[in-house]
This record gives sequence, C-alpha cells and structure tokens, in this order.
Amino acid sequence: MLGEIIAIGNELTSGRIPNTTSGFAAHHLFEAGFDIYAMHTIGDTPKLIGEALNRALGRVDFVLVTGGLGTTDDDLTTVAVSKALNRPTMPNLEILSLIRKHLDGNSGQPISSLEKLAWLPEGAETLNAKARMAGFQLIHDGKPIFFLPGIPHQMRTLLVEQVLPRLATWYKGRQLNSVQQVFKIFGIAESDVNLAVEKLALDTDVEIGYYPVFPEVHLSMTIRGNDKKKTDKLAKDTSRLLKKTLGTAIYGKDQDTLESVVGKLLLDSNKTLSVAESCTGGLISHLMTSIAGSSSYYLGGVTSYANSMKTTYLGVDENILNSKGAVSKEVAKAMAQGMHQKSGSDISLSVTGIAGPGGGSKEKPVGTVLIGMTNTKSTSVQRFLFSGNRYEIQRLTAQTALDIVRRSLLETKHQNNSSHLMAS
Amino acid sequence: MLGEIIAIGNELTSGRIPNTTSGFAAHHLFEAGFDIYAMHTIGDTPKLIGEALNRALGRVDFVLVTGGLGTTDDDLTTVAVSKALNRPTMPNLEILSLIRKHLDGNSGQPISSLEKLAWLPEGAETLNAKARMAGFQLIHDGKPIFFLPGIPHQMRTLLVEQVLPRLATWYKGRQLNSVQQVFKIFGIAESDVNLAVEKLALDTDVEIGYYPVFPEVHLSMTIRGNDKKKTDKLAKDTSRLLKKTLGTAIYGKDQDTLESVVGKLLLDSNKTLSVAESCTGGLISHLMTSIAGSSSYYLGGVTSYANSMKTTYLGVDENILNSKGAVSKEVAKAMAQGMHQKSGSDISLSVTGIAGPGGGSKEKPVGTVLIGMTNTKSTSVQRFLFSGNRYEIQRLTAQTALDIVRRSLLETKHQNNSSHLMAS
Repeated sequence: MLGEIIAIGNELTSGRIPNTTSGFAAHHLFEAGFDIYAMHTIGDTPKLIGEALNRALGRVDFVLVTGGLGTTDDDLTTVAVSKALNRPTMPNLEILSLIRKHLDGNSGQPISSLEKLAWLPEGAETLNAKARMAGFQLIHDGKPIFFLPGIPHQMRTLLVEQVLPRLATWYKGRQLNSVQQVFKIFGIAESDVNLAVEKLALDTDVEIGYYPVFPEVHLSMTIRGNDKKKTDKLAKDTSRLLKKTLGTAIYGKDQDTLESVVGKLLLDSNKTLSVAESCTGGLISHLMTSIAGSSSYYLGGVTSYANSMKTTYLGVDENILNSKGAVSKEVAKAMAQGMHQKSGSDISLSVTGIAGPGGGSKEKPVGTVLIGMTNTKSTSVQRFLFSGNRYEIQRLTAQTALDIVRRSLLETKHQNNSSHLMAS
Repeated sequence: MLGEIIAIGNELTSGRIPNTTSGFAAHHLFEAGFDIYAMHTIGDTPKLIGEALNRALGRVDFVLVTGGLGTTDDDLTTVAVSKALNRPTMPNLEILSLIRKHLDGNSGQPISSLEKLAWLPEGAETLNAKARMAGFQLIHDGKPIFFLPGIPHQMRTLLVEQVLPRLATWYKGRQLNSVQQVFKIFGIAESDVNLAVEKLALDTDVEIGYYPVFPEVHLSMTIRGNDKKKTDKLAKDTSRLLKKTLGTAIYGKDQDTLESVVGKLLLDSNKTLSVAESCTGGLISHLMTSIAGSSSYYLGGVTSYANSMKTTYLGVDENILNSKGAVSKEVAKAMAQGMHQKSGSDISLSVTGIAGPGGGSKEKPVGTVLIGMTNTKSTSVQRFLFSGNRYEIQRLTAQTALDIVRRSLLETKHQNNSSHLMAS
C-alpha cells in the first residue's frame, strides 16, 4: 500500500521552520506496513496544492496533507482542495455550533474568525469531534485523504489516534507483516560492509539498505511478507548471518548509541571509567554523560588542553612534554596512567592529537591522534591518522576511543565466559 | 528566481532518518534571495528520480538534488539522472586517479568499489576537486542542477562553499539586491523578542522572521529592493534599531556562536578560562574547544562527575559535600575557586546541578543548577531552575554558563573603555 505526504506552508519552503512532521508520519506509516512513495513540501499556493494532490491521487493509494488549515489569511489548503477536487465548501454544523460557543474574552461575542474552521469541502468528515484542532478526512475516487494541522503536536496526536487506525481498518484486507531492524556499525567503511553483505546472497524477501551516519554506518534490514511466522524466522536467520559476517563491527541495534553500549558494558562488568582528553576537549566526557544514569560508572575526567594542565592535573613529566611533544605515545601513556592513579577508576582513557586546522607538521600532520587506555593490568597506546575537518577529527577520535573501551570490555567478558565454561 | 529541492533516499521515505538537509538548504537559499517552489523527498527509485527532476526543470530556474551519490548498490541518483537527461555516464579522470591512490589497508590494492564515484553524467563538473566528497553540477537546458551528498555535514559544506557562490554568479544578471542578517539572541523568550520588535513599526520593506534554535532565538532581517544604496541604508538603520532595542541579549550575528563570541572576547582581553563541570559532564569544555585556535585562551577543565573527583581534583572539602550536598552554592563556589587556584587561569567557571531524569528531590528538583564564576577579584554563584529533558537541561546550563562569562567580559571591556575616556 502506497501513500504520499504533502506538507504545506511558506514557513517550510523558506526554511524558517524545519519540517519535522513529514518524517514523523513516514516513520509511523512505514512501521504500520505502508510505504511512502514521495513526500512534498510546498508553499501556501492553491495551484500547487491542487496539482500535488491530484498527482498523488493518480499514483498512490492514500494521501496525507499537513498544514494550511488554520484561521489566518495564508491558510489556503481547504480552499485549494475544494477547487482541485471540485467539492464546494460547506459548513459543518456540529463544528460551527461548537465554535460559536467560544466567546471573545473582551466583547463576549462569538469569535467569527474561527468560523473558517467549520467550512470544509463537501463530503469531509472531521477527525476531531470536539473541534479542539483542525483536521478532516475525505474519500475521493475511493481513496482516503487525510488533512491534518501543521502544528507538530496536533499533527502527531491526530496521526496516531485517528489516521493510523482509520488506515488499518480501510486496508484491513492486507495481510502484510513487516519486520525492521537497524544494525549500527563502526570501524568498517560503507563500501566494505556492502561487499561483505553482497556475498551473503540473502533471500530476495530481505531488503538491505545502507546509510552513513557520521562516523558510523547503519544497515537496515526490512522483511515483509504475508506469513508472520515465515517473516519472523527469516528476520532471525538474516540477523544471525549479518552478525556472524560483520562480527564486533556491529556495536549495537536500533536505539543503541556507542556511548550507551559502552555504559552498559561498564555497568555489567561493575567497572568505572575516567578520561583524560586533549584534542577532543571534553567531547568523550560529554558523550559518556549524555546517558542518564552514567554516574554509576563514569567518574569524570580532565580536559588538559594546555600543557600546564597535563603536568598539574595528570602528573605528566615536563621533560617528556618538552622532548617528545604533547602529541606523542609517551604523553598519551603518561596521561592515561596519571588519570588512572589519581582518579581511582578501573579503566582510564587518554587522547592527545592535532584536530586542526592549524598545528600540523610534516612529522605529525593534522589528524595525528594517540589514544591510550590503561586498566589495573596494562597500558596500551595506539596511533591514528584521521582525515577530515576539525569537527570530524574530534568526532572520529572520540568514537574510536570509546570503541577501544568497548572492544576491551567485550574481550574481558568473553574471557570470563570462557573460564566459567572451563570451570564447569 | 525559483528553485526546487529533491532529497533522495529510502532512509528518508521510511522515516528512519529525518530529512534535515532540505530545510537547511531552503533556509540558506531563501536568505540568498532565492525562493523555493517545492521540496520533494523520494526513495532510491530511478523512475521517480527522473520524473521529479524533469518536472522541476520544466517549471523552476535551478534544482538542488541531495542523496544517493554514494558507492553502494542503493545509491542510484547518478544512473537515474543519466537516463532521465539522456547523458551517458563517463569517468571523470581526475577523480578516478585520486580514488586510485586510496589503497586498501589490507591488500594494498586500489579500492575499486570507490570508482563508482568517478562515473558522472556527461557534462558534469565536480564540486569538490579533491574528491573528498561526492557532488557535481550539471547545466541542462540552460539551468544549473546541483547534486550533493545526503550526508548532512558534507551537504552543508558544499551548499555553503560551492552552490551559493555558483548560483550568485550564475544569476548575477538579476537586479534584486537583498540584504539579510541573522541576529542571535539568548536569554529572552521568542514571544518577548516579537513584542519588542513589533513596537518598532519597521519599514514595510523590512521582513523580520523569528525561529527558535534551541536554546537560542534567531531573528532574521531581510531587505530586498532594486536600489542597492537604499537597501543598504535601510539594513544599517534597522540593524542599529534592533541592537538598541534588544541590547546585550543579541550575542552575535550570522556565523557567530556563543562559544566563538566568548573566545573572541577572551582573546581580545588577553584572558584565559578553565571550567569545572559536574552536571554538564564536559559539554562546556567541548563547546569551547570546538573553535579552532581555542588553545590560545582555553586551558582546559575538570569533569568532576563523581564526588571523589570534586575532592581529588578541585579540592572541594568533603565536609561541605556531606553537609550541603554536591548541588549547592557552597560546592559551586569551592569548585570554581579550586579550579582557579590550581589551573592558574584568569577566569574559572563551575557548574553543578541535576540534569535528570533521576536524582531530583522536593528541595532540589531536576533542573536545579548552580553556576559559579571566579576571577582574581571575586567569586559569584547563581542558582537556576531549568526545565526540559536531560539534554535540554545540560544544553541550557552550558549556554547560560558561557553567557555569564560573556556578560562579565563585556562589562570589563565597557569599564576599561570608560576609564580610557575619562583619562583622555
């Protein structure tokens, strides 16, 4: 079942207000088993509204129109629809009487400017009997068209409470069942993920999509079919195959973020983390503390942006700073160890590097980053050369540092599981 | 001059990813004096891509297409365009040779899967000579079409750095002169800004728009006319009037951010800053260091998320923590002073609060925040009660803290200027 979404408003085409309603509707309609053929955003122009509506009616099964239903002069949707579909507007008596009960606080007279809301195209059925919001439904050429207000929270309420149930009833004949999962991947390029998955020769009922969400790659798996048991089994099998193929590069699913996954691993292993940051300037700490409840496993950190901070707060030897430079393996190691000793955390991360645009040299170009990690047993330092602008280098560094913690925790978990197995 | 925007990607029509790029483009194009006739979001379907492009070419002066330019199988824009406009794809030799220099880390062979990026429709001109991103321009039927990647930060970069200047040159014949300025405001509600500006009864040629960009309010002033001298004068007068009306609530203009403005004020006054953060967890530090060159005035900070960090790194008295609690005026004061003394910075900020969703009490509900600031002369602490979710409370806290530094630096600057005047 195919639908189209048309969002109306000059505030949208001028970019003054971002269009959040179309994406919200697409997401919910897709989850309910409907596909969206196209979404359009147009200004309050009757001719264009009519054209877009008629074109959609000619090629899809239902249409959702948002915006332009208000009381002001630039709200032209109802008039445009009336003309385009040749359905004269007439007053909805129920709404009219409700509106006439609203009195102006000053004059005590009915508010006539609201009466515009009661005039709907012939055949329209209101979506909100109490007239607290605009919104109506038309059946035209045997296809449902829903008109919702553009105000996001009203639109969302009516979509969820009125449109989705009405569409489900309307198309109750369809048997389609859909399963969707998003796999979140870090550390492999999109093209390599694609190559690896191509080789799997998956079932033709499985639809795979890739999209980069910097600095990650997300892979979506969609399976639709008439037989719920069959689609569920296919989803399970495909999910297992993808996990086997991409291994630990898949860090999570659906709503997971790398920082929430690292947080969960720390919590599960009853370990605490602290971070000494230089070139990321607090970004790793910010990511960790964006998760509610992070105080259970995240102690905090030091942003040692200036060299003086590295000696004062992390105990990095001034001689090492002078002889090796702040961006060096030795300093990364000393930062991690200094953070670890003084904070008392189980694991400490350190990052030092050159985020640019200035500060690079032939030996240490912009993008050179050292990431250190220490726990009670050992300290490791890895060197990277990231490319991109300042924002990208900082983001890649933070993500890579968190991924190093994730992989280390996974390894420990795996070792513990193995030793349990051996003991039993 | 009219344009259309076409965003391509199944991840958009399924609502998995919100389309943020079209609104961004519409906003910037509108500001540059171009109107947007319609915006479309469609899936990776060649037929639909071709139809949308041809329809747009038939009715507007330029087209912007985003998405579907990547290396994977579901990136179909180039192929669809080639077919729809009857322009066979051919390799761009410059891009091809750049791509062939990228070697696979494992095999040492050129990465052939990237070569797809070098095949462009006949007549295409690349928008990014270094081939760091996809993106090209076509002139078809005398109209420019721009193809940009769907990855938001790449799309934004190319739009601002390539598309806007190219369009400006392309349509240099147009007589319309437009001046646009965005004023960035913090600390006043949108409705209050609106009320204050309404009272000014501005010239009818001045178009004022408001849009909240959390946690700020942005006010755009657009003036269009045929007489450049007249529009420039009107812009200057209106700008002066707006600044007089809204005062220091306007922290900057156009590309300014609060952190860049604070950085500039620190640089100008030759002062350094350090930050002790609790509930913001590194966000203030991250914002300060997002600015290139911030190492000249930003020393770094301590994220003392755990109480143990507050005593170890900031010297906060354990007795105060126990008697007054971590979220108290006394602890905010001790954090700022501890940071100031040990780091040797001129100014130190501190924040402690409850970002939620847990941790609130009747006396100190979620959103309770204390912000301290100290310089060599004095220490001040202010108490706030912010509302919103965890992200919003953290963001509001960081923004308010930086604004306190800004206002303090402005005051010092003003005092210095006054004393200079008196001395002269």
